[in-house]
Amino acid sequence: MPVALDNEEDVVRLIASLACKGGDELRVGIGDDCAVLSLGGHLWCVTTDLMVEGVHFDLAYFTPYDLGRKVMAANLSDLAAMGADPRWGFLSLGMGPKPDSAFLRGVIRGLSDLGKQYGLSLAGGDTVRSPALILNLCIMGLAQGQGPLLRSGARPGDAICVTGNLGASAAGLAWLQQGGEADDPAALAAVQAHLRPTPRVAAGRALAQSGRAHAMMDLSDGLATDLARMALASQVGAEVLAERLPLDRTTRELAQRLGADPLEWALSGGEDFELLFTCDPAEVELLAEIVEEAEAGLTVTRVGRVTRGTGVELVGPDKQRRQIAFSGFDHFRAGQPE
Amino acid sequence: MPVALDNEEDVVRLIASLACKGGDELRVGIGDDCAVLSLGGHLWCVTTDLMVEGVHFDLAYFTPYDLGRKVMAANLSDLAAMGADPRWGFLSLGMGPKPDSAFLRGVIRGLSDLGKQYGLSLAGGDTVRSPALILNLCIMGLAQGQGPLLRSGARPGDAICVTGNLGASAAGLAWLQQGGEADDPAALAAVQAHLRPTPRVAAGRALAQSGRAHAMMDLSDGLATDLARMALASQVGAEVLAERLPLDRTTRELAQRLGADPLEWALSGGEDFELLFTCDPAEVELLAEIVEEAEAGLTVTRVGRVTRGTGVELVGPDKQRRQIAFSGFDHFRAGQPE
Repeated sequence: MPVALDNEEDVVRLIASLACKGGDELRVGIGDDCAVLSLGGHLWCVTTDLMVEGVHFDLAYFTPYDLGRKVMAANLSDLAAMGADPRWGFLSLGMGPKPDSAFLRGVIRGLSDLGKQYGLSLAGGDTVRSPALILNLCIMGLAQGQGPLLRSGARPGDAICVTGNLGASAAGLAWLQQGGEADDPAALAAVQAHLRPTPRVAAGRALAQSGRAHAMMDLSDGLATDLARMALASQVGAEVLAERLPLDRTTRELAQRLGADPLEWALSGGEDFELLFTCDPAEVELLAEIVEEAEAGLTVTRVGRVTRGTGVELVGPDKQRRQIAFSGFDHFRAGQPE
Repeated sequence: MPVALDNEEDVVRLIASLACKGGDELRVGIGDDCAVLSLGGHLWCVTTDLMVEGVHFDLAYFTPYDLGRKVMAANLSDLAAMGADPRWGFLSLGMGPKPDSAFLRGVIRGLSDLGKQYGLSLAGGDTVRSPALILNLCIMGLAQGQGPLLRSGARPGDAICVTGNLGASAAGLAWLQQGGEADDPAALAAVQAHLRPTPRVAAGRALAQSGRAHAMMDLSDGLATDLARMALASQVGAEVLAERLPLDRTTRELAQRLGADPLEWALSGGEDFELLFTCDPAEVELLAEIVEEAEAGLTVTRVGRVTRGTGVELVGPDKQRRQIAFSGFDHFRAGQPE
């Protein structure tokens, strides 16, 4: 009898349980930001991201250039999460029956310009006809320092930190969806966060090289879901202080104008592509300096702590607690709008 | 001004001209069956294939198991074309909002059962919501012998050879599309060729290890198009003798029943997933023995010769010649049915 799968975790768990498994060269398999392979004395990180028109992006907001750039950014963010150095990419492209050269040029330039910044080569791919625009990018990078930083290394007592600000991408998307102009100065920072995110490759590499972060991943589906994934992989709980969540001015102002809760954007909006990591509380300042050294102007904010419990608790300004694990974006959550 | 791109070659050429390019570890980039990377003293081949519901497969004919198996077969066939040994796979899966566990189980089992036969591990991937079913597989393999066999090695005077039979997959598809039963004994061999192709991994590896084949690729879009790609990459021409094309009995009989031309299926049908290679004419028999040693029962047929010209000429039984280059399956050919 067919049984519906209710969320992404179930889908991934089912795939992992049935997937063919091979030799000992595979160090980390299904379930982290990247797979980790041991090849010729080096550790390689591999990740893949599938983006589908109407699900991941709306061509009303994205120029072809920005779309190509964003697919690359989302993938690079997964390598950043392991602290790996980008090297090769493989692009699969599904397009309508009459691909337009200006459109294709834009996509490949956007993707290549960002890839080039981080030393990546587009080495191969596949192009096919498709009813909706589809982009799948699979990229490989070389692990740095003492090897890739995993989701599973968080320890009770660790400080939970994030780079940059949260919720800006969701704020920008909400603005665009409500008919706001992309170049309105009052919304620009948020719109740019949505259309032109910066993958934290340099910061991720620096954190991995420092050997001081215990666990790391990137924030693609919102802190509530991504931190729950880290907690599950590390067999720990997490506590987040609402008042510590870093929200920039534009995000707060747009929330007020649109009647939205900026906290919701920060917890569940997704596509921040910032780094989430844990470390010894005594080393937060040192790691903040390391991150600032790697990417000028990039802040590190301590947003909570790792506990011996399970799940993710949000502690409000009134000290009230609520469980928020897995309340971020989920492609397959039952009851989600289709 | 937007300019429509008229065929896959134009699309790939445009992408290759704009793609970011990196260090000297990349030995073969966009344009062959696989990219070739030099890592830690070994050569690695990487390939990716995107399959979209309604374009590449019809769920009326494919069980979930056969669909998963075919995605793996199509990818393994690209590694076979380089003579590489399969190692890792990365699967991106786009599905409806309520994925059914029986369906997903079938797809992953089909894919994993075939992967396991060749020592491949499914190491990672991505799962997203999508309006149509989408499967993208990216796989890596280790090159054998003196390194991967490329498309560009064909030399004037070479014999042009193919493994197995041609046109059976197209015959099986035509049978199914005209309402034929999948298990009709008179059509079974062709239907199986369409639904359950065998990638020629062992034969490809043996040919690469022999060091005697000059050029190799797999037949996925039909001999007319794939041989034209090889001729172009090798800067040579090709001449194919119509009467030498290996057609099995079922394919001939189905052509008669359906009023179709079996030669068209062999030249333009696609999805044969057999190997196309060239070699010294004096060594065809030796290579046929090597292939039979690697895959019992697998034949090698010499179908033509490499010339100093350009394009691909088909020589009929009446000695009439016609140019057939690129008349096989093309996702973006202008004027093709949408």
